[in-house]
Amino acid sequence: MKNKIPVAVIAATGAVGQRFINLLDGHPWFKVVALTGSERREGQKYGESVHWILSDPMPDWAADMQIKPSRPKALDVPLVFSALPRQYATEIEATFARAGVAVCSNAGAYRTDPLVPILVPEINSHQLELIALQRQAKGWDGLIATNSNCTSTGLTISLKILDDAFGVKRVFATSLQAISGAGYPGVASLDMIDNIVPNISGEEEKVQWEPRKMMGMIENGELKLHPLQLSVHTNRVPVSDGHTVCMSIELDNKPKPEDVAHALASYLPPEIARDLPFTPSPVVKVRTEDDRPQPRLDRMTGGGMTTVVGRIRPDPIFDIKMVVLSHNTIRGAAGGSIYNAELFVKTGLVRIQD
Amino acid sequence: MKNKIPVAVIAATGAVGQRFINLLDGHPWFKVVALTGSERREGQKYGESVHWILSDPMPDWAADMQIKPSRPKALDVPLVFSALPRQYATEIEATFARAGVAVCSNAGAYRTDPLVPILVPEINSHQLELIALQRQAKGWDGLIATNSNCTSTGLTISLKILDDAFGVKRVFATSLQAISGAGYPGVASLDMIDNIVPNISGEEEKVQWEPRKMMGMIENGELKLHPLQLSVHTNRVPVSDGHTVCMSIELDNKPKPEDVAHALASYLPPEIARDLPFTPSPVVKVRTEDDRPQPRLDRMTGGGMTTVVGRIRPDPIFDIKMVVLSHNTIRGAAGGSIYNAELFVKTGLVRIQD
Amino acid sequence: MKNKIPVAVIAATGAVGQRFINLLDGHPWFKVVALTGSERREGQKYGESVHWILSDPMPDWAADMQIKPSRPKALDVPLVFSALPRQYATEIEATFARAGVAVCSNAGAYRTDPLVPILVPEINSHQLELIALQRQAKGWDGLIATNSNCTSTGLTISLKILDDAFGVKRVFATSLQAISGAGYPGVASLDMIDNIVPNISGEEEKVQWEPRKMMGMIENGELKLHPLQLSVHTNRVPVSDGHTVCMSIELDNKPKPEDVAHALASYLPPEIARDLPFTPSPVVKVRTEDDRPQPRLDRMTGGGMTTVVGRIRPDPIFDIKMVVLSHNTIRGAAGGSIYNAELFVKTGLVRIQD
Amino acid sequence: MKNKIPVAVIAATGAVGQRFINLLDGHPWFKVVALTGSERREGQKYGESVHWILSDPMPDWAADMQIKPSRPKALDVPLVFSALPRQYATEIEATFARAGVAVCSNAGAYRTDPLVPILVPEINSHQLELIALQRQAKGWDGLIATNSNCTSTGLTISLKILDDAFGVKRVFATSLQAISGAGYPGVASLDMIDNIVPNISGEEEKVQWEPRKMMGMIENGELKLHPLQLSVHTNRVPVSDGHTVCMSIELDNKPKPEDVAHALASYLPPEIARDLPFTPSPVVKVRTEDDRPQPRLDRMTGGGMTTVVGRIRPDPIFDIKMVVLSHNTIRGAAGGSIYNAELFVKTGLVRIQD
Repeated sequence: MKNKIPVAVIAATGAVGQRFINLLDGHPWFKVVALTGSERREGQKYGESVHWILSDPMPDWAADMQIKPSRPKALDVPLVFSALPRQYATEIEATFARAGVAVCSNAGAYRTDPLVPILVPEINSHQLELIALQRQAKGWDGLIATNSNCTSTGLTISLKILDDAFGVKRVFATSLQAISGAGYPGVASLDMIDNIVPNISGEEEKVQWEPRKMMGMIENGELKLHPLQLSVHTNRVPVSDGHTVCMSIELDNKPKPEDVAHALASYLPPEIARDLPFTPSPVVKVRTEDDRPQPRLDRMTGGGMTTVVGRIRPDPIFDIKMVVLSHNTIRGAAGGSIYNAELFVKTGLVRIQD
Repeated sequence: MKNKIPVAVIAATGAVGQRFINLLDGHPWFKVVALTGSERREGQKYGESVHWILSDPMPDWAADMQIKPSRPKALDVPLVFSALPRQYATEIEATFARAGVAVCSNAGAYRTDPLVPILVPEINSHQLELIALQRQAKGWDGLIATNSNCTSTGLTISLKILDDAFGVKRVFATSLQAISGAGYPGVASLDMIDNIVPNISGEEEKVQWEPRKMMGMIENGELKLHPLQLSVHTNRVPVSDGHTVCMSIELDNKPKPEDVAHALASYLPPEIARDLPFTPSPVVKVRTEDDRPQPRLDRMTGGGMTTVVGRIRPDPIFDIKMVVLSHNTIRGAAGGSIYNAELFVKTGLVRIQD
Repeated sequence: MKNKIPVAVIAATGAVGQRFINLLDGHPWFKVVALTGSERREGQKYGESVHWILSDPMPDWAADMQIKPSRPKALDVPLVFSALPRQYATEIEATFARAGVAVCSNAGAYRTDPLVPILVPEINSHQLELIALQRQAKGWDGLIATNSNCTSTGLTISLKILDDAFGVKRVFATSLQAISGAGYPGVASLDMIDNIVPNISGEEEKVQWEPRKMMGMIENGELKLHPLQLSVHTNRVPVSDGHTVCMSIELDNKPKPEDVAHALASYLPPEIARDLPFTPSPVVKVRTEDDRPQPRLDRMTGGGMTTVVGRIRPDPIFDIKMVVLSHNTIRGAAGGSIYNAELFVKTGLVRIQD
Repeated sequence: MKNKIPVAVIAATGAVGQRFINLLDGHPWFKVVALTGSERREGQKYGESVHWILSDPMPDWAADMQIKPSRPKALDVPLVFSALPRQYATEIEATFARAGVAVCSNAGAYRTDPLVPILVPEINSHQLELIALQRQAKGWDGLIATNSNCTSTGLTISLKILDDAFGVKRVFATSLQAISGAGYPGVASLDMIDNIVPNISGEEEKVQWEPRKMMGMIENGELKLHPLQLSVHTNRVPVSDGHTVCMSIELDNKPKPEDVAHALASYLPPEIARDLPFTPSPVVKVRTEDDRPQPRLDRMTGGGMTTVVGRIRPDPIFDIKMVVLSHNTIRGAAGGSIYNAELFVKTGLVRIQD
């Protein structure tokens, strides 16, 4: 690509905003030309305003940028990545979409909107169809697409592949979630030393619903939720990055564990989502050791975009037990949004403005 | 009690052996008169031979004891607490039972023996009936009773109460287990910093079976396994003490969460197991905060003998979701064995020899 | 003591306030009759207003108390324990002292006041002399005494003993401090997983100065700072409770390590501070293993009031190297203040009002 | 370089062996053609024999290699990287050197040998002179050079720069060391949860001596130890990688903190060691925030080869206080040895065999 597409990161100072900057550094298609932040930071240098929390160093180009307001005119880009908190996202993201900008959002604000896809290109690029419906219904020239909740991501990628192959009916899932999901300062250290916390407020409801939307089909111009049932327990554990989910799965066909492993390991994304810069390679890595996946060892598989599945074995009540690991701030947040944006470029929904 | 009963701790140098010493310090009925260890430690002073890992200091009386061999004649006590590794327990514990000694064991060796009860006095003292059958069949003057696997303990206590009240049919359970369960040195620190391990070898099979035995009834001189079905995922997490279990439970009657909370909170042990020194008080503590129980805050409830249950709520597939916490080396190991021993004294199965 | 002295805990909802309640539960001399908190909590039940962070459960009597304002008239007690933040302590503590109340404070506000002793009864009860000077100069009927900064505490106790025995000239000290010192939520968990933080804001200056005041003598009605020199590095590490300090010490006389160990281990508090309920027993525990003291294993020595010293060995530049551990919220905060209060009762500076 | 130099990793299955493989993957000059391990692993596939502990995945080429014995004839390479334990290194490394092989060793066996340099190319490439003396005295065609103890590394790099600029006389240093330094399984997790361990056996002696050798000059064919004096405390903390050292430094000239910062930040390696693939860039990164360096955030600076220094400030007893962070298994172990090997190639001490 000769001319990179200029993009902005909205709410760039938080944990997910930092990850956007980290992952967009050197991206072959996108060039970050603007960073935004809260009003009190406007005009400050990004490098002096942010409390950087990633182990990868802050790129120099980001350090030197001046923080701008989160308004379309102030940015003048065809595509933005939004790391806005939910309460601001509803209004600001719509403003951008109305102004003709494509918004790839990590916020939860529009995830429940039936016209906004929760896009995970390796498994549900068919939901791109919603964009036309969304534009028509809302009168937008731009668009909004969200990535999924970080805990739903790996879980849904693996379930969708199994659903295609064997039919998924019911799922029990228990998560062991990393602290980076709560931002910074986020979880208090007194809660994470010699301890776990057996709840993440509001998370169970999301993970019981979002996968049904993500796995849904569009019929007669309407997204139908997938009928599978989920029961979810969420826990916070002392891990920096990488959400682990233990699952028991009931399937229509009764595959053997090796069939499940084969279906996951051999899965390829649909043609349209296959060779993009952030396409996970492989989509799913199946590990055969009896103590994997582990967050510290496996979260960076495929640059943090691969879903890692292990311990595939029979379930005494349902059919299959397995453990899924996904990097919560890469595949489950910023990296997922970048992959979505690549899909918009590939399909012509975002174009370089000449 | 005027004259305390002399007891010995078998394999006293390991993690569970240390906890026996810690909990028997100042016990109103028992007086530790001997500690045993592996052959190479025989004759050494306990205080100089052991690598003490508990945060409570080693009692002075223990520090000064000479380590003895694990043979009945060398000890001359009517009751021993066994912290033997499984591979030695089969033979050594039988030797003691044959010699007329009551063995309260933390080892797994006899847990699957249909004549040896996995005793949890607050819920299954009816299985004491097995002792007479055991003595007759094996020709022992003594006896062996085991406590349960540490992960099964809190799970089974709460399930048995719910079974009595509502009938338990099927259970999905995911554990987040403390490192002390693996002894010392046990789990490597590289596996427990910024990490969890999604398996504990052999543990899932145990936790899918033991509760069925523990909840079983004796019919025609034979222990019948309870018909409930369990599906279990086990995980190791960076917590020193206290196993957390997330459960989804299918019940015959369809109680509301508040009915479940009431059944658990109001449960009293059977008369015979009610007022012993190690009887948990309460048996179950129900917490109503939305982020409890937590290991660091709740494991020492009732001196570490109480089972703590929280987050009782509806389950979208089964009936009830809840979280159970139990101290793995107290209620789930040494403390449980001491409670068993107290039950033997109370029922006359162990007597003071005049 | 037939009639316990009624006391109040000021700012009872924070980390140190909770520790005061925990340690005063069952105190033989004091009975907590009031708890205070910030204005917005006034009138609420303590148990419903506080986010309890200690592993010991909240006493029932505290849970049921109504939170009161931090004003002398509202409390009507002769003695208060203050866990106020520094910015409020200056004014509120003076108001109590003026009203005739003895204030045993954990706040830093008055530590630099030449008329307010930083009292550590086992080593500097001679500074009680300041109370009369304080009352006269400030016109108070009550009094203020502070305990020391948590990091200074163990360090100063051991240095004062060595100063008496051998003369202390210069000290290099590096701390590894627990997170409870920062309160709740305090340190972010992202800073304490797979990490340490090599600074605690403002702490080094305090620890380089406070010991000189604590070890000072009163001459001609004036407290003279001890002339020793300190150079201090402070670090935050992932430990819940217990500050560890590595020290290299230059001494006037050149004792052998065994002489230092003997001086520390055999030290007795002055007669007047010797047999109080919170007198540490022993004042210093000397450990001879080569890997102790460790926070998890040793912080609760003497109920958390004992200073634990280990690894006493020659220093290649100065004279002696050693490691000191002290429980930062017990000996270094709430427990220290309670010990101070006992000393006031013992010396008649606080009396029971008939 | 058209033809890469074939190299072997000796003792490739341990923690440091794994790091060698990780860092040599894709190296522009070296190609790993053989891996060795203990006798019982000979003939096994590396990928099936090793317990991989790094978060970077094992390279495929390594997974497929058959483990060979640690004998020169079995390997036929001009250069080996040795991760041998000390007790085997003495004999095996000499065998290789005698056979004409250049041994870049991470073992401690030869560090005290006056003819074997502890090489840190950015600061002491002048000690290459020892190689000719070593060959002559020992009759070797090959050579042995070691990298330094992981804790000495960052400390010595920064001290040598300060010595050149200002003259270093005396140093107090306290380390907070990562667990990866102890290998796998290494430190028990029970010692590293809610805990630190205030000693690392034998480490303090090494760190008090090695820097003096590394900073030494060769006079009349003999290495003279640098006269500086060091007093060192070593601690183990719950950090996976990255050793932090707090230092107080006495200097001949009395520079201001900003002079020290400038000397460190502007330092360039000697010409001969300047543009090699593993030359750290920069050699030292000076951070100006008041809470840096931190292991999680800063250890990967310069790919883990850069020494990070922060908190440069006046010392009340000596002259300068500062904090140094160095990646213990990269700059302090495998990466350091690779840098040494590059220096041997650059200087012609290792040649490609045609």
